[in-house]
Amino acid sequence: MIRLAADTAHTKKVLRPGPSLYPLPAVLVSCAGEVDGVPRRNVLTLAWAGIACGEPPMVSVAVRPTRFSHGLIVSSGEFVVNVPSVAMCRAVDLCGNLSGRDGDKFALAGLTAAPASQVGAPLVAECPISLECRVRHTFSGGSHDLFIGEIVAVQADEAVLDANGKIDIVKVDPLCYGGGFYWPLELGRRLGDYGFSRK
Amino acid sequence: MIRLAADTAHTKKVLRPGPSLYPLPAVLVSCAGEVDGVPRRNVLTLAWAGIACGEPPMVSVAVRPTRFSHGLIVSSGEFVVNVPSVAMCRAVDLCGNLSGRDGDKFALAGLTAAPASQVGAPLVAECPISLECRVRHTFSGGSHDLFIGEIVAVQADEAVLDANGKIDIVKVDPLCYGGGFYWPLELGRRLGDYGFSRK
Repeated sequence: MIRLAADTAHTKKVLRPGPSLYPLPAVLVSCAGEVDGVPRRNVLTLAWAGIACGEPPMVSVAVRPTRFSHGLIVSSGEFVVNVPSVAMCRAVDLCGNLSGRDGDKFALAGLTAAPASQVGAPLVAECPISLECRVRHTFSGGSHDLFIGEIVAVQADEAVLDANGKIDIVKVDPLCYGGGFYWPLELGRRLGDYGFSRK
Repeated sequence: MIRLAADTAHTKKVLRPGPSLYPLPAVLVSCAGEVDGVPRRNVLTLAWAGIACGEPPMVSVAVRPTRFSHGLIVSSGEFVVNVPSVAMCRAVDLCGNLSGRDGDKFALAGLTAAPASQVGAPLVAECPISLECRVRHTFSGGSHDLFIGEIVAVQADEAVLDANGKIDIVKVDPLCYGGGFYWPLELGRRLGDYGFSRK
């Protein structure tokens, strides 16, 4: 262990280890696969998602093996990360509090399954952005398996694209999660663009 | 590939695959290690971080192998994820636009290195939360390596703790990233707590 001279002896309060990263994205992961030979689909809410690689683009999602969606992702090797808007907060929370074992969660939460372009898993039509993924790697850390998927296609509502056809985050109005609560971004208070400090 | 009957034929616009996840956390990753036998420290800005496991808690960070910090993390097997507040936006951007090869980035960005409790890598004293990590797994996806670290300790400023000693996200005022810009959370507009849709 390399311990360099620190600038200060100041330490903060040491807490019990926990997943204290802020903010997190609240996303809907949709998937389809076979359960006992019967094809099933599901949609799962999670905040433990992150970008894992740039080229090719990859996204990671952490899923408990006990979740109904876990088996669908393992059997199909596919999933879709759907980015919801703030207006979808109730449906997002509902999908995080029901199990696909109770029935078709799309119907239970009032969501619409739409076809993907590159994978068999359905999209959530109401979400402004959907990342179609193929599993490239799985890491089992303990309570959760981390599925790392290559983003093989992105679908976006025309309504969230700018004049150049690029995604405009202000139009997306994405849903954030932290501290047990859902939050919006304050999109009227842009703090600066990447690189602003050197201008 | 299992393709179920969709509820709709509606599709969105298909875009080029990219890392279109919103929002992302803007964090400072600090590390220390040896370079040509000389101990060095560094601090790196990145938004490609996510929670990878709950028990034990783990966090992932995606780092290009060409980055100065990459070698420090590989040689030490340790890193610290520091969660900055909105007020630190300029220092965060500066650390994302300088290289540790140019000098000590803590000094260049006006940041203070403080000792960690469980790892040799320094903390960023100005950040309200620091997650001390030991690398448990590395996945090379292409342009980036994903370091998955077990969070072996959390340090938090007393100023961001509530009366029960738990982290209060409103007091943290975390820095978000998306669409090439930094953003605050709108902390005066809490949308609901986890589970609110079933109450």
